[in-house]
Amino acid sequence: MTTSAPHDPKARELFEEMARWPVYDPHSHIDPHRPAARNFDEVLGYHYYTELAHSAGMPADRVAPELTHRKRAENLAEYLDRIDNTVQFSWLLEICRTFHGLTDEKITPKNIGAIYDRADHAADGATWDREVWDKTRLEAVFLTNDFDDPLEGWDTRKYVPCLRTDDLVLKLHEPSTAQRLRSVTGIDVQDFATLRQALAALFERFLMKGARACAISLPPDFIPRRATPKCAVTPVRRALHQMDLRPEEHAEVRSAVFWTLAELCADFRLPFDLMIGPIRNVYPAGVAGGRDLFDRRVSLHDYRELFNHFAGVTFPVSTLSPDAGAELVAYAWIFPNVVPMGHWWYSNIPAYIAADLRARLQAVPKTKLVGYYSDAYKLEFVLPKFNMYRKVLAETLAEDAVRGRGWTLERALELARLVLLENPRRLFGRSDAEASARI
Amino acid sequence: MTTSAPHDPKARELFEEMARWPVYDPHSHIDPHRPAARNFDEVLGYHYYTELAHSAGMPADRVAPELTHRKRAENLAEYLDRIDNTVQFSWLLEICRTFHGLTDEKITPKNIGAIYDRADHAADGATWDREVWDKTRLEAVFLTNDFDDPLEGWDTRKYVPCLRTDDLVLKLHEPSTAQRLRSVTGIDVQDFATLRQALAALFERFLMKGARACAISLPPDFIPRRATPKCAVTPVRRALHQMDLRPEEHAEVRSAVFWTLAELCADFRLPFDLMIGPIRNVYPAGVAGGRDLFDRRVSLHDYRELFNHFAGVTFPVSTLSPDAGAELVAYAWIFPNVVPMGHWWYSNIPAYIAADLRARLQAVPKTKLVGYYSDAYKLEFVLPKFNMYRKVLAETLAEDAVRGRGWTLERALELARLVLLENPRRLFGRSDAEASARI
Amino acid sequence: MTTSAPHDPKARELFEEMARWPVYDPHSHIDPHRPAARNFDEVLGYHYYTELAHSAGMPADRVAPELTHRKRAENLAEYLDRIDNTVQFSWLLEICRTFHGLTDEKITPKNIGAIYDRADHAADGATWDREVWDKTRLEAVFLTNDFDDPLEGWDTRKYVPCLRTDDLVLKLHEPSTAQRLRSVTGIDVQDFATLRQALAALFERFLMKGARACAISLPPDFIPRRATPKCAVTPVRRALHQMDLRPEEHAEVRSAVFWTLAELCADFRLPFDLMIGPIRNVYPAGVAGGRDLFDRRVSLHDYRELFNHFAGVTFPVSTLSPDAGAELVAYAWIFPNVVPMGHWWYSNIPAYIAADLRARLQAVPKTKLVGYYSDAYKLEFVLPKFNMYRKVLAETLAEDAVRGRGWTLERALELARLVLLENPRRLFGRSDAEASARI
Repeated sequence: MTTSAPHDPKARELFEEMARWPVYDPHSHIDPHRPAARNFDEVLGYHYYTELAHSAGMPADRVAPELTHRKRAENLAEYLDRIDNTVQFSWLLEICRTFHGLTDEKITPKNIGAIYDRADHAADGATWDREVWDKTRLEAVFLTNDFDDPLEGWDTRKYVPCLRTDDLVLKLHEPSTAQRLRSVTGIDVQDFATLRQALAALFERFLMKGARACAISLPPDFIPRRATPKCAVTPVRRALHQMDLRPEEHAEVRSAVFWTLAELCADFRLPFDLMIGPIRNVYPAGVAGGRDLFDRRVSLHDYRELFNHFAGVTFPVSTLSPDAGAELVAYAWIFPNVVPMGHWWYSNIPAYIAADLRARLQAVPKTKLVGYYSDAYKLEFVLPKFNMYRKVLAETLAEDAVRGRGWTLERALELARLVLLENPRRLFGRSDAEASARI
Repeated sequence: MTTSAPHDPKARELFEEMARWPVYDPHSHIDPHRPAARNFDEVLGYHYYTELAHSAGMPADRVAPELTHRKRAENLAEYLDRIDNTVQFSWLLEICRTFHGLTDEKITPKNIGAIYDRADHAADGATWDREVWDKTRLEAVFLTNDFDDPLEGWDTRKYVPCLRTDDLVLKLHEPSTAQRLRSVTGIDVQDFATLRQALAALFERFLMKGARACAISLPPDFIPRRATPKCAVTPVRRALHQMDLRPEEHAEVRSAVFWTLAELCADFRLPFDLMIGPIRNVYPAGVAGGRDLFDRRVSLHDYRELFNHFAGVTFPVSTLSPDAGAELVAYAWIFPNVVPMGHWWYSNIPAYIAADLRARLQAVPKTKLVGYYSDAYKLEFVLPKFNMYRKVLAETLAEDAVRGRGWTLERALELARLVLLENPRRLFGRSDAEASARI
Repeated sequence: MTTSAPHDPKARELFEEMARWPVYDPHSHIDPHRPAARNFDEVLGYHYYTELAHSAGMPADRVAPELTHRKRAENLAEYLDRIDNTVQFSWLLEICRTFHGLTDEKITPKNIGAIYDRADHAADGATWDREVWDKTRLEAVFLTNDFDDPLEGWDTRKYVPCLRTDDLVLKLHEPSTAQRLRSVTGIDVQDFATLRQALAALFERFLMKGARACAISLPPDFIPRRATPKCAVTPVRRALHQMDLRPEEHAEVRSAVFWTLAELCADFRLPFDLMIGPIRNVYPAGVAGGRDLFDRRVSLHDYRELFNHFAGVTFPVSTLSPDAGAELVAYAWIFPNVVPMGHWWYSNIPAYIAADLRARLQAVPKTKLVGYYSDAYKLEFVLPKFNMYRKVLAETLAEDAVRGRGWTLERALELARLVLLENPRRLFGRSDAEASARI
């Protein structure tokens, strides 16, 4: 029995069918040059395990980067029993069972050595990548590429580029940002006009390489405002030259760059993924990747001007604070261009997924639901995370649609197929003809 | 099998009994002169369908007012498959089955013509009104009347008047408001004193016509404040004469009128329905009725002065943001005059109803729960919307009360009867003797 | 059949085992000199019953303090049918059945006299205390002691002292606070320096008497800030001498005292219970204990500086607004020193407990979960409140762990044991050796 299959018979039938489908994963942090883990430390190094173990008492230096992979894995294994109740731990167990032949129920200091040995793919990395890909039945996985990523050396139909724009919006005033931008575009970025040229050049380059989305994560106090070049021109120039900026000038720069990116998404017909909520470095003493949190006092009402102005841009939206989920349902119900996308980070546990999913299925047009993305750093996580979602989806459909509304299993599966496959394929425009027509 | 009946046997027993009861509907937008739909476009024209179809890709002009009824219905039918997952669509299907003999599972361009023909009641409107009324077992349905509604030409014991006060509070500065007020009351409204006289005259007129409630919908940034005539007198006069108002003067006017209405509710012993949360026209390019949304950052703490000051006024409260439901439970648990009422608009889907209802049943005195209202524009919607609620109520009682606390079905039904019938009848004072005694 | 046992067979098995365990209750308002109720008015006087009955229409003077105990009980009984749907009423019924031999389903004016007679323990108070303690299988119950409580006259291993600091932080400017502080510590508190000495003396005294926690309840607008003695010294001196304080000086005083208490928790290695959210006296005309509410717009992000600075202090956190529960899950998931504790007051009903508990079990290390506390004023309430929690815990584990993840009942019970017993025992340091080593 896999951990993921639901107990309820109708839900199990639905799940088992879904488990035979390909996986279309529209957001991840996979490195296309090393997609699967080369060793078990790369699995355990996922911030969920280090941060949960640290939260449960593990000193951060037990997983310090200067330690060997094996040592880090051994150290972390000492604390895994403290977090074996979590859903994140269940992903780990499913990885060990599915990909590394584990039959034990636990991962402990006793068996960590054997698991480490079995999961060692230093010597056969590329083969292992293919094996994980195939077992996962992956169809495509989206990347999160820095704007100066060379975008070379992999099949971009499988590992789909996505332009990450956080640095451009939030760190334009840092010297490295402008420098990287000049360097990758060959444009001598000195002011708002040349900045816009450079950003357009980035879009062209990404589109040429098969990019399917632009993406950004935004803090809860960010409010998108229509940029007026007149107001933005001076602060942007000052930012590009690392001159001191007052807080309202920083805000002006962020607004202007963000608005320009939205304009380019409109021009280039690229969806703009908005990932709303994180505050970086709330807990600076945390482990790498485990320092960010949020302030729950956030509202999509702050995004109304953006959604109205860019009626032609699709905005797949993820919100971080679990209690903000109901607002996303309402905004997606009204705005044609707002698409609720997946279940993100602190909202990505079955309790919150189930509540949000049920509401989305009841109140958002089915053609607008982008069910899930893995957010994974290593390929191994795509399958257990998608299985967690497919389980909740199967249970929700069994309860609300099959038993609740008398639907056949076939009809429920049609809806599941839309949510898991057809919607993301369509919304992110997998037709190559269409993609080239865009430029 | 009706779509609405629960699958669980105990819940089904409860539901089937409730389905035999009359419906007491304490809030709607029914037009008493044309309560039931004269054609199927008047059903499909409910903003839920046009806004969801528009959200799913239908251009707004496909349902433009200049088109014929039949054409609009045909156009909308092309998009209904995109929203057939929603609970709103299930109301539509139930209407087609219950009132128009549909046996199909879907409403499509193929069968829309036949449905349209069957639902045509242009020739026998009044008969059709009675038929829908009777099939619904309607006992009473509350209207939402403009303050200058003539209130003539219908049986006000069945179609119960309710004084809507949005325009008075939020649009006093618009020329038409003062003009309408002068015209309907015959009072030459020129200042705060004559305004108060005119408002009192409205209450008297509405009470004479059998009104059972005063109602208002308020934006999330509205904070009721005790009006001091001294501060209000100048801004109110300026508003009545369409002079320019600063933002704080606008706020003063809104406060003063709102507080005066609450005083009149106290004087005339009329419940004051507060519908808290909507922001109008957030999405101006939307279809009619589908442009309003909310900001979830709202709290009933802003209403404390109102609830304290008007201890003698019953405030049936609906909140719009689904995540605000728990606060309403707490405020209704403490304040004797705060009554949680129904499940409104963006909160009116089974996922949110179930969560809110469960909490209300666990923590608010049972005599204070006003279960549901339809908010309908056409009579046909009363039944499927109430059935949706009765289903959730039946499931909640079966789970929490019958299985969870060992109650008999009879005891669970007593509670359901309170919530659905006896509480609204009592709280909105259906005794005619009492009503006349009020004046 | 007890009211509490779950209907589902697996859940029932889990519950029945848990019901055999001792109860470790890390927060209450029990008076150790009169822990159990001496008469039924002391049971019915729990604010839940008076406030719910008042909310349902009972005039506050029906339970006025000048009435006799019996009269108050009789008066309240007239209104209990209006609240017999609530979970709070179910605690009352369980008390009557478990401790007073009631076999009726209701408490009414007819049987209240007999119940009152049976519950009369004026003559055998101490014996009754022991009987309730034993039936509850109480192992320890934490008190909430005023800072000048003599802490004498009871077994502090059973009735564990806890230093309540609300008055010190929020009411330092009131004359009685400084006076009580001088009187109990013998220190001539005149300024920030002597205040700190006095606070340290309080900690020493409480630790000597076996205290296991420091606790405070904080309003939603309180933001902990690192106190700088330089800024605090003048406002603190002014507060101690009852001189007028501007709002920002009040804030400075509160911050300075609160931060000093956190420093002392660090020095003395005492957990600092944070109970976040209540606003006092929102409904002044309410019954005693039934006047406080909250503003849901609150975020733990306001506490980041505190959690970061005092990495060595354990903060068991309770939040009042039910919709804030998901944020607590995230903060406890990241911060090692943030521990989600129980389900408090307006969040303490099964609907909210179930939602919060499910998420905590899925996303917070199991070693950090402090399942429940009674918050009781009389011993009789500990058992029904813990049973309510144990029921939800059993149902959640049966559904999510046993059926959902294939766990054995034994494994589920191990988790329950951690949450109910082992975690609170460990986090609140019941080892007497360790406790004395702290000083």
